[in-house]
Amino acid sequence: MRILGIDPGLRRTGFGVIEVHGAALRYVASGTIVAPPATALAERLKVILDNLREVARDARPDVAALEKVFLNANPQSTLLLGQARGAALCALADSGLAVHEYTALQIKKAVVGHGRAAKEQVQAMVRRLLSLDGDPAPDAADALACAICHAHYEPLARRLGDLGQAPAQGGRRIRGGRLIA
Amino acid sequence: MRILGIDPGLRRTGFGVIEVHGAALRYVASGTIVAPPATALAERLKVILDNLREVARDARPDVAALEKVFLNANPQSTLLLGQARGAALCALADSGLAVHEYTALQIKKAVVGHGRAAKEQVQAMVRRLLSLDGDPAPDAADALACAICHAHYEPLARRLGDLGQAPAQGGRRIRGGRLIA
Repeated sequence: MRILGIDPGLRRTGFGVIEVHGAALRYVASGTIVAPPATALAERLKVILDNLREVARDARPDVAALEKVFLNANPQSTLLLGQARGAALCALADSGLAVHEYTALQIKKAVVGHGRAAKEQVQAMVRRLLSLDGDPAPDAADALACAICHAHYEPLARRLGDLGQAPAQGGRRIRGGRLIA
Repeated sequence: MRILGIDPGLRRTGFGVIEVHGAALRYVASGTIVAPPATALAERLKVILDNLREVARDARPDVAALEKVFLNANPQSTLLLGQARGAALCALADSGLAVHEYTALQIKKAVVGHGRAAKEQVQAMVRRLLSLDGDPAPDAADALACAICHAHYEPLARRLGDLGQAPAQGGRRIRGGRLIA
Protein backbone atom coordinates (compact mmCIF):
# COMPACT_ATOMS: atom_id res chain seq x y z
CA MET A 1 0.00 0.00 0.00
CA ARG A 2 1.23 3.48 -0.89
CA ILE A 3 0.35 6.36 1.43
CA LEU A 4 0.55 10.05 0.57
CA GLY A 5 0.97 12.27 3.62
CA ILE A 6 0.28 16.00 3.33
CA ASP A 7 1.12 18.98 5.53
CA PRO A 8 -0.79 21.84 3.90
CA GLY A 9 0.02 25.53 4.25
CA LEU A 10 -0.56 28.58 2.09
CA ARG A 11 3.18 29.29 1.85
CA ARG A 12 4.61 25.78 1.98
CA THR A 13 2.85 22.45 1.56
CA GLY A 14 4.86 19.38 2.50
CA PHE A 15 4.18 16.00 0.94
CA GLY A 16 5.62 12.56 1.50
CA VAL A 17 4.94 9.15 -0.02
CA ILE A 18 5.78 5.85 1.68
CA GLU A 19 5.13 2.23 0.86
CA VAL A 20 4.02 -0.33 3.44
CA HIS A 21 5.05 -3.98 3.14
CA GLY A 22 3.72 -5.75 6.21
CA ALA A 23 5.60 -4.13 9.09
CA ALA A 24 8.25 -2.61 6.81
CA LEU A 25 8.08 0.98 5.61
CA ARG A 26 9.81 2.18 2.47
CA TYR A 27 10.45 5.80 1.52
CA VAL A 28 9.22 6.66 -1.97
CA ALA A 29 9.34 10.45 -2.36
CA SER A 30 8.79 13.71 -0.55
CA GLY A 31 9.15 17.42 -1.05
CA THR A 32 7.76 20.87 -0.50
CA ILE A 33 5.41 22.83 -2.73
CA VAL A 34 6.23 26.50 -2.43
CA ALA A 35 3.51 28.94 -3.52
CA PRO A 36 4.98 32.31 -4.56
CA PRO A 37 3.97 34.65 -1.70
CA ALA A 38 3.63 37.82 -3.80
CA THR A 39 0.88 36.49 -6.05
CA ALA A 40 -2.91 36.53 -5.71
CA LEU A 41 -4.62 34.08 -3.36
CA ALA A 42 -6.36 32.15 -6.17
CA GLU A 43 -3.05 31.72 -7.94
CA ARG A 44 -1.32 30.43 -4.81
CA LEU A 45 -4.12 27.94 -4.23
CA LYS A 46 -3.81 26.82 -7.83
CA VAL A 47 -0.10 26.08 -7.30
CA ILE A 48 -1.07 23.78 -4.40
CA LEU A 49 -3.89 22.18 -6.40
CA ASP A 50 -1.85 21.59 -9.57
CA ASN A 51 1.26 20.33 -7.83
CA LEU A 52 -0.54 17.96 -5.47
CA ARG A 53 -2.48 16.53 -8.39
CA GLU A 54 0.85 16.03 -10.14
CA VAL A 55 2.31 14.31 -7.08
CA ALA A 56 -0.73 12.01 -6.90
CA ARG A 57 -0.45 11.25 -10.62
CA ASP A 58 3.28 10.50 -10.44
CA ALA A 59 3.50 8.68 -7.11
CA ARG A 60 0.20 6.74 -7.51
CA PRO A 61 -0.70 6.50 -3.81
CA ASP A 62 -3.63 4.34 -2.69
CA VAL A 63 -4.73 6.64 0.11
CA ALA A 64 -3.95 10.04 1.65
CA ALA A 65 -3.38 11.20 5.23
CA LEU A 66 -3.54 14.70 6.67
CA GLU A 67 -2.99 16.26 10.06
CA LYS A 68 -6.11 17.59 11.79
CA VAL A 69 -5.86 21.33 12.21
CA PHE A 70 -4.67 22.89 15.40
CA LEU A 71 -6.83 26.02 15.53
CA ASN A 72 -4.76 29.15 15.52
CA ALA A 73 -5.74 32.01 17.82
CA ASN A 74 -5.42 34.38 14.87
CA PRO A 75 -8.61 34.15 12.77
CA GLN A 76 -6.87 35.56 9.69
CA SER A 77 -4.26 32.76 9.85
CA THR A 78 -7.01 30.20 10.38
CA LEU A 79 -8.80 31.47 7.27
CA LEU A 80 -5.62 31.34 5.18
CA LEU A 81 -4.76 27.84 6.42
CA GLY A 82 -8.35 26.77 5.77
CA GLN A 83 -8.13 27.93 2.17
CA ALA A 84 -4.81 26.11 1.63
CA ARG A 85 -6.28 23.01 3.23
CA GLY A 86 -9.35 23.29 0.98
CA ALA A 87 -7.07 23.38 -2.08
CA ALA A 88 -5.11 20.34 -0.85
CA LEU A 89 -8.29 18.36 -0.14
CA CYS A 90 -9.63 19.29 -3.60
CA ALA A 91 -6.45 17.93 -5.19
CA LEU A 92 -6.79 14.66 -3.27
CA ALA A 93 -10.50 14.37 -4.09
CA ASP A 94 -9.78 15.16 -7.75
CA SER A 95 -7.25 12.31 -7.70
CA GLY A 96 -9.88 9.92 -6.29
CA LEU A 97 -8.02 9.44 -3.00
CA ALA A 98 -9.74 8.69 0.30
CA VAL A 99 -8.46 11.04 3.01
CA HIS A 100 -7.76 10.13 6.63
CA GLU A 101 -7.15 12.75 9.29
CA TYR A 102 -5.07 12.36 12.44
CA THR A 103 -4.44 14.67 15.37
CA ALA A 104 -0.90 15.87 16.13
CA LEU A 105 -1.06 13.67 19.24
CA GLN A 106 -1.86 10.54 17.23
CA ILE A 107 0.96 11.31 14.80
CA LYS A 108 3.55 11.83 17.54
CA LYS A 109 2.43 8.67 19.33
CA ALA A 110 2.64 6.63 16.15
CA VAL A 111 6.05 7.97 15.11
CA VAL A 112 7.89 8.59 18.40
CA GLY A 113 5.86 6.53 20.88
CA HIS A 114 4.51 9.35 23.03
CA GLY A 115 2.53 12.54 22.48
CA ARG A 116 4.97 15.04 24.00
CA ALA A 117 7.68 14.58 21.37
CA ALA A 118 9.45 17.70 20.06
CA LYS A 119 9.52 18.51 16.34
CA GLU A 120 13.19 17.42 16.11
CA GLN A 121 12.41 14.03 17.65
CA VAL A 122 9.67 13.46 15.07
CA GLN A 123 12.10 14.40 12.29
CA ALA A 124 14.81 12.08 13.65
CA MET A 125 12.36 9.18 13.97
CA VAL A 126 11.02 9.75 10.43
CA ARG A 127 14.64 9.57 9.23
CA ARG A 128 15.26 6.36 11.18
CA LEU A 129 11.98 4.60 10.34
CA LEU A 130 12.47 5.28 6.62
CA SER A 131 16.28 4.71 6.66
CA LEU A 132 16.99 8.13 5.14
CA ASP A 133 20.50 9.48 4.66
CA GLY A 134 19.63 12.90 6.03
CA ASP A 135 16.86 14.78 7.79
CA PRO A 136 14.02 15.63 5.41
CA ALA A 137 12.96 19.29 5.25
CA PRO A 138 10.52 20.20 8.08
CA ASP A 139 7.30 20.31 6.01
CA ALA A 140 8.20 17.11 4.17
CA ALA A 141 9.06 15.43 7.52
CA ASP A 142 5.63 16.34 8.90
CA ALA A 143 3.97 14.94 5.79
CA LEU A 144 5.99 11.71 6.04
CA ALA A 145 5.14 11.45 9.76
CA CYS A 146 1.47 11.71 8.84
CA ALA A 147 1.86 8.91 6.27
CA ILE A 148 3.68 6.76 8.84
CA CYS A 149 0.84 7.44 11.30
CA HIS A 150 -1.68 6.14 8.79
CA ALA A 151 0.45 3.02 8.20
CA HIS A 152 0.30 2.53 11.98
CA TYR A 153 -3.44 3.06 12.45
CA GLU A 154 -4.73 1.66 9.17
CA PRO A 155 -4.78 -2.05 10.19
CA LEU A 156 -6.74 -1.11 13.32
CA ALA A 157 -9.11 1.15 11.38
CA ARG A 158 -9.63 -1.60 8.83
CA ARG A 159 -10.61 -4.03 11.59
CA LEU A 160 -12.98 -1.48 13.09
CA GLY A 161 -14.41 -0.83 9.64
CA ASP A 162 -14.16 2.94 9.91
CA LEU A 163 -11.94 3.56 6.90
CA GLY A 164 -12.85 6.65 4.93
CA GLN A 165 -14.57 6.42 1.61
CA ALA A 166 -13.14 7.67 -1.64
CA PRO A 167 -15.08 10.74 -2.71
CA ALA A 168 -17.93 9.67 -4.96
CA GLN A 169 -18.57 11.38 -8.26
CA GLY A 170 -22.31 11.47 -7.54
CA GLY A 171 -24.32 13.43 -5.04
CA ARG A 172 -24.43 16.54 -7.16
CA ARG A 173 -27.10 18.98 -6.24
CA ILE A 174 -26.56 21.69 -8.76
CA ARG A 175 -29.60 23.64 -9.84
CA GLY A 176 -29.46 26.00 -12.75
CA GLY A 177 -32.65 27.93 -11.96
CA ARG A 178 -32.59 30.78 -9.49
CA LEU A 179 -35.75 29.71 -7.68
CA ILE A 180 -34.20 26.61 -6.15
CA ALA A 181 -33.93 26.77 -2.36
CA MET B 1 -18.80 40.92 -20.33
CA ARG B 2 -20.10 37.98 -18.31
CA ILE B 3 -19.48 38.00 -14.55
CA LEU B 4 -19.76 35.01 -12.25
CA GLY B 5 -20.45 35.97 -8.64
CA ILE B 6 -19.87 33.42 -5.88
CA ASP B 7 -20.97 33.22 -2.25
CA PRO B 8 -19.04 30.21 -0.92
CA GLY B 9 -20.00 28.16 2.12
CA LEU B 10 -19.39 24.56 3.17
CA ARG B 11 -23.11 23.82 3.29
CA ARG B 12 -24.42 26.10 0.54
CA THR B 13 -22.53 27.91 -2.17
CA GLY B 14 -24.49 30.51 -4.12
CA PHE B 15 -23.59 31.44 -7.67
CA GLY B 16 -24.95 33.99 -10.09
CA VAL B 17 -24.05 34.97 -13.63
CA ILE B 18 -24.89 38.34 -15.18
CA GLU B 19 -24.06 40.01 -18.46
CA VAL B 20 -23.05 43.66 -18.77
CA HIS B 21 -23.92 45.69 -21.87
CA GLY B 22 -22.77 49.23 -21.23
CA ALA B 23 -24.89 50.42 -18.32
CA ALA B 24 -27.43 47.59 -18.72
CA LEU B 25 -27.30 44.40 -16.68
CA ARG B 26 -28.85 41.14 -17.83
CA TYR B 27 -29.56 38.10 -15.67
CA VAL B 28 -28.08 34.88 -17.08
CA ALA B 29 -28.32 32.20 -14.39
CA SER B 30 -28.02 31.58 -10.68
CA GLY B 31 -28.45 28.82 -8.15
CA THR B 32 -27.22 27.14 -5.03
CA ILE B 33 -24.79 24.25 -4.74
CA VAL B 34 -25.74 22.14 -1.75
CA ALA B 35 -23.04 19.85 -0.36
CA PRO B 36 -24.55 16.87 1.50
CA PRO B 37 -23.83 17.65 5.19
CA ALA B 38 -23.46 14.05 6.36
CA THR B 39 -20.50 13.22 4.10
CA ALA B 40 -16.75 13.58 4.63
CA LEU B 41 -15.14 17.01 4.32
CA ALA B 42 -13.13 16.10 1.19
CA GLU B 43 -16.29 14.89 -0.50
CA ARG B 44 -18.21 18.06 0.34
CA LEU B 45 -15.36 20.17 -1.03
CA LYS B 46 -15.38 18.08 -4.19
CA VAL B 47 -19.08 18.83 -4.68
CA ILE B 48 -18.25 22.56 -4.58
CA LEU B 49 -15.24 22.09 -6.88
CA ASP B 50 -17.04 19.95 -9.48
CA ASN B 51 -20.22 21.99 -9.59
CA LEU B 52 -18.51 25.37 -9.80
CA ARG B 53 -16.31 24.06 -12.62
CA GLU B 54 -19.50 22.92 -14.35
CA VAL B 55 -21.11 26.34 -13.86
CA ALA B 56 -18.02 28.02 -15.31
CA ARG B 57 -18.00 25.61 -18.25
CA ASP B 58 -21.70 26.09 -18.99
CA ALA B 59 -22.09 29.82 -18.32
CA ARG B 60 -18.73 30.82 -19.84
CA PRO B 61 -18.06 33.89 -17.65
CA ASP B 62 -15.15 36.21 -18.41
CA VAL B 63 -14.34 36.96 -14.80
CA ALA B 64 -15.34 36.00 -11.26
CA ALA B 65 -16.20 38.04 -8.16
CA LEU B 66 -16.27 36.97 -4.52
CA GLU B 67 -17.12 38.60 -1.22
CA LYS B 68 -14.17 39.21 1.10
CA VAL B 69 -14.57 37.18 4.24
CA PHE B 70 -16.02 38.63 7.36
CA LEU B 71 -13.99 36.85 10.02
CA ASN B 72 -16.16 34.80 12.30
CA ALA B 73 -15.47 34.82 16.04
CA ASN B 74 -15.65 31.03 16.03
CA PRO B 75 -12.30 29.64 14.77
CA GLN B 76 -13.87 26.30 13.81
CA SER B 77 -16.40 28.09 11.56
CA THR B 78 -13.61 30.20 10.09
CA LEU B 79 -11.64 27.06 9.25
CA LEU B 80 -14.66 25.40 7.61
CA LEU B 81 -15.47 28.53 5.62
CA GLY B 82 -11.81 28.82 4.62
CA GLN B 83 -11.82 25.29 3.26
CA ALA B 84 -15.03 25.91 1.28
CA ARG B 85 -13.58 29.15 -0.03
CA GLY B 86 -10.37 27.32 -1.00
CA ALA B 87 -12.41 24.82 -3.02
CA ALA B 88 -14.36 27.62 -4.74
CA LEU B 89 -11.17 29.53 -5.61
CA CYS B 90 -9.62 26.31 -6.96
CA ALA B 91 -12.64 25.81 -9.24
CA LEU B 92 -12.32 29.38 -10.54
CA ALA B 93 -8.56 29.04 -11.02
CA ASP B 94 -9.05 25.69 -12.76
CA SER B 95 -11.47 27.43 -15.11
CA GLY B 96 -8.88 30.11 -15.89
CA LEU B 97 -10.94 32.91 -14.34
CA ALA B 98 -9.43 36.00 -12.74
CA VAL B 99 -10.97 36.57 -9.30
CA HIS B 100 -11.90 39.94 -7.79
CA GLU B 101 -12.78 40.35 -4.14
CA TYR B 102 -15.08 42.97 -2.64
CA THR B 103 -16.00 43.78 0.95
CA ALA B 104 -19.62 43.50 2.11
CA LEU B 105 -19.60 47.30 2.35
CA GLN B 106 -18.54 47.73 -1.29
CA ILE B 107 -21.21 45.27 -2.41
CA LYS B 108 -24.00 46.99 -0.47
CA LYS B 109 -22.89 50.39 -1.72
CA ALA B 110 -22.81 49.19 -5.33
CA VAL B 111 -26.19 47.45 -5.18
CA VAL B 112 -28.27 49.56 -2.78
CA GLY B 113 -26.33 52.84 -2.69
CA HIS B 114 -25.25 52.80 0.95
CA GLY B 115 -23.36 50.42 3.22
CA ARG B 116 -25.99 49.95 5.94
CA ALA B 117 -28.48 48.10 3.74
CA ALA B 118 -30.26 45.07 5.22
CA LYS B 119 -30.10 41.68 3.53
CA GLU B 120 -33.69 42.05 2.30
CA GLN B 121 -32.90 45.41 0.68
CA VAL B 122 -29.98 43.84 -1.18
CA GLN B 123 -32.23 41.00 -2.36
CA ALA B 124 -34.94 43.44 -3.50
CA MET B 125 -32.42 45.59 -5.40
CA VAL B 126 -30.87 42.53 -7.06
CA ARG B 127 -34.37 41.58 -8.21
CA ARG B 128 -35.02 45.10 -9.53
CA LEU B 129 -31.64 45.66 -11.19
CA LEU B 130 -31.89 42.34 -13.02
CA SER B 131 -35.67 42.60 -13.71
CA LEU B 132 -36.38 39.25 -12.07
CA ASP B 133 -39.92 37.91 -11.57
CA GLY B 134 -39.25 36.84 -7.98
CA ASP B 135 -36.68 37.11 -5.23
CA PRO B 136 -33.72 34.84 -5.87
CA ALA B 137 -32.76 32.43 -3.05
CA PRO B 138 -30.57 34.12 -0.38
CA ASP B 139 -27.21 32.56 -1.37
CA ALA B 140 -27.87 33.12 -5.07
CA ALA B 141 -28.90 36.73 -4.33
CA ASP B 142 -25.61 37.35 -2.50
CA ALA B 143 -23.71 35.87 -5.41
CA LEU B 144 -25.62 38.03 -7.92
CA ALA B 145 -25.01 41.11 -5.74
CA CYS B 146 -21.30 40.36 -5.85
CA ALA B 147 -21.41 40.10 -9.65
CA ILE B 148 -23.33 43.42 -9.85
CA CYS B 149 -20.70 44.97 -7.60
CA HIS B 150 -17.97 43.93 -9.99
CA ALA B 151 -19.94 45.37 -12.93
CA HIS B 152 -20.04 48.62 -10.95
CA TYR B 153 -16.38 48.78 -9.95
CA GLU B 154 -14.82 47.16 -13.00
CA PRO B 155 -14.71 50.29 -15.24
CA LEU B 156 -13.02 52.18 -12.40
CA ALA B 157 -10.60 49.33 -11.70
CA ARG B 158 -9.80 49.13 -15.41
CA ARG B 159 -8.97 52.84 -15.50
CA LEU B 160 -6.79 52.49 -12.42
CA GLY B 161 -5.15 49.43 -13.93
CA ASP B 162 -5.53 47.29 -10.84
CA LEU B 163 -7.54 44.47 -12.36
CA GLY B 164 -6.60 41.06 -11.08
CA GLN B 165 -4.64 38.65 -13.20
CA ALA B 166 -5.86 35.29 -14.41
CA PRO B 167 -3.95 32.56 -12.58
CA ALA B 168 -0.89 31.63 -14.60
CA GLN B 169 -0.05 28.02 -15.35
CA GLY B 170 3.62 28.66 -14.56
CA GLY B 171 5.38 29.38 -11.30
CA ARG B 172 5.51 25.77 -10.21
CA ARG B 173 8.00 25.01 -7.55
CA ILE B 174 7.53 21.32 -7.13
CA ARG B 175 10.58 19.36 -6.10
CA GLY B 176 10.53 15.61 -6.09
CA GLY B 177 13.59 15.17 -3.87
CA ARG B 178 13.27 15.29 -0.14
CA LEU B 179 16.29 17.52 0.43
CA ILE B 180 14.73 20.60 -1.12
CA ALA B 181 14.25 23.43 1.37
